Amino acid sequence: MKERKFSATQLQNFCESIFKTIGCSDLEAQKAATVLVSADLRGIDSHGVARLTGYVKQWEMQKLNTKPNIQIVHETPSTATVDGDSGLGLIVAQEAMNIAIQKATQVGSGWVAVRNSGHFGIAGYHAMMALPYDMIGICLTHSTSLSTPTYSLEKLLGTNPIAVAIPADKEPAFVADLATTTVAYGKLQILQRKGLEAPLGWAQDEEGQPTTNPHAPKEGGALTPLGSDDLHSSYKGYCLGATVDILSGVLSGANFGPWVPPFATAGSTSERQPPVGLGTGHFFGAMRIDGFRPAAEFKKDMDLWIQTFRNAKAIPGKRVLIPGEPETMAEKDRLQNGIPLIGKVQEELHALALGLEIESIFGE
Amino acid sequence: MKERKFSATQLQNFCESIFKTIGCSDLEAQKAATVLVSADLRGIDSHGVARLTGYVKQWEMQKLNTKPNIQIVHETPSTATVDGDSGLGLIVAQEAMNIAIQKATQVGSGWVAVRNSGHFGIAGYHAMMALPYDMIGICLTHSTSLSTPTYSLEKLLGTNPIAVAIPADKEPAFVADLATTTVAYGKLQILQRKGLEAPLGWAQDEEGQPTTNPHAPKEGGALTPLGSDDLHSSYKGYCLGATVDILSGVLSGANFGPWVPPFATAGSTSERQPPVGLGTGHFFGAMRIDGFRPAAEFKKDMDLWIQTFRNAKAIPGKRVLIPGEPETMAEKDRLQNGIPLIGKVQEELHALALGLEIESIFGE
Repeated sequence: MKERKFSATQLQNFCESIFKTIGCSDLEAQKAATVLVSADLRGIDSHGVARLTGYVKQWEMQKLNTKPNIQIVHETPSTATVDGDSGLGLIVAQEAMNIAIQKATQVGSGWVAVRNSGHFGIAGYHAMMALPYDMIGICLTHSTSLSTPTYSLEKLLGTNPIAVAIPADKEPAFVADLATTTVAYGKLQILQRKGLEAPLGWAQDEEGQPTTNPHAPKEGGALTPLGSDDLHSSYKGYCLGATVDILSGVLSGANFGPWVPPFATAGSTSERQPPVGLGTGHFFGAMRIDGFRPAAEFKKDMDLWIQTFRNAKAIPGKRVLIPGEPETMAEKDRLQNGIPLIGKVQEELHALALGLEIESIFGE
Repeated sequence: MKERKFSATQLQNFCESIFKTIGCSDLEAQKAATVLVSADLRGIDSHGVARLTGYVKQWEMQKLNTKPNIQIVHETPSTATVDGDSGLGLIVAQEAMNIAIQKATQVGSGWVAVRNSGHFGIAGYHAMMALPYDMIGICLTHSTSLSTPTYSLEKLLGTNPIAVAIPADKEPAFVADLATTTVAYGKLQILQRKGLEAPLGWAQDEEGQPTTNPHAPKEGGALTPLGSDDLHSSYKGYCLGATVDILSGVLSGANFGPWVPPFATAGSTSERQPPVGLGTGHFFGAMRIDGFRPAAEFKKDMDLWIQTFRNAKAIPGKRVLIPGEPETMAEKDRLQNGIPLIGKVQEELHALALGLEIESIFGE
């Protein structure tokens, strides 16, 4: 199939049908679909509807509970641990972030560790849930091991992203959302499909040496931590990825390190046994701006911050981007012109629809 | 002068005398000295007694108030903003971290933004204050501009470190403490002194191109954000440094970005005028482990986390280090064998003692 564009509404409706078919309520299907389509709108194609097949596979393998009892198992006024009951990470994350926001409303900040969850889509979506409340939103998650500490030959850490969303006044919000590896695995997958080599510094081979092989992480090698190598401070990326793993996994009572379960994708469903905790974990935070200073003052200063950085003198032909700006531009474009899906994703989604006996919008 | 070793007690007593001479109380002098000597003990020589001259210079320039009224100016049960009244950052930071710890004791977590402060020594010291309480400690600070956003020719961000301290049971605590630039400026200063070139990726020149000139940040160039260049995701280091700047500066009502005042060192005392806020800012956090799960369980899991990472198969001749481990090893060594100070630092401290008419331990 050729690349084709779809409207956000088309993809939203399709995803909702799929989630309802595997047992989600109407509301939950809508909430889960929104996270996936938001990734596509924001140009993060690796985490959008292309992942739908993975969630269904988790359900088929009976690792996904579409009627979960998501509950707080431990709490103080500003902290909580939430058990996701093996529910969709896309839903569990929103419940947990809402609890963080509620606690922030009450006592200034809220911090929620989550266990027994699964893949939750883009971290930025959940962090951004804090913005309408004039709060700073924070969202971390660990994921299955694809990266190594500096000098390690064993994969012990995932791409473990950090997302921070900070409101401004007239300017769009500041939204940082970054894997703590040099690049996310999706960037290597793109090179794999195109038969291209990777730049040195993105991955290491099975002997821990820099490699241009984009298949390296699946052939005994690994993604490098942010920094690429010891000379360029890869131990800093390792420190950050490790912190995300501990807050998401150890603090919540989920698995951690090499025990973090894989997201169901072909050929990668093995889990290190026995587990050391319950499922996959995340960590969420919300802080009320006016817990520190009046929100109006803060947001005015954020506008000045953003304008100062955006207008900085730049290398000819380039300009300084504000975190979240590329995603905001993609969203504007794709809302108007549609979301492009490559043939392979359309084929997968078509097969998914046939398998679950729902109407496909992807057939030729 | 030749390099010579001094005991921690010698340096502690000397620093205390200096701080008392410029007006600190006995207790505050002791607290401030402890942070500096802790840096030397932990092997972070750039942030130890070598900085003492800078603090005195701030005081001589009447930018340092040694009788500050450090106070909470805004708060909720889990958050606060503290005004440091132009006091020593070394002291203001400890007051603020203690407030975060108190709030965490009461409501599970405490988050404190600070304005009107100054250079506070090593971030790790303040984060580690949470450890005896079975809390996770977090400490961020911005600093004067030495680095750029990706593609920028203007310096807009400092080295903006992130420190996270997490307690374990029988193992030493996990302590990550990292500048969000590829390297801290201290690493270039070492090369400057030795007349050596810097590895490509540490700095950019005045045209934004990679350079081996270790003087580049003072000659129109800049330190690179963690990641080194756009191909290796320097925008991630930029996002992290920017987040530290916003939480330290904008949230507290301090200066931010290019307005962050310099630490007094020869030839770098100019401030961008007019200021956009009050002095330098920091950000502190403390979270009670048992706000999430029983602390004993958590610490046992942290031991397993640490042992799993430490024992990972590594590149021949190397091993996987746990964040904080090199510093713990340095501390053990230096407590026993003394702290080495290079001749230049001894000379500066000797001159400092003569100038303030106190006894010097650095004369020949």
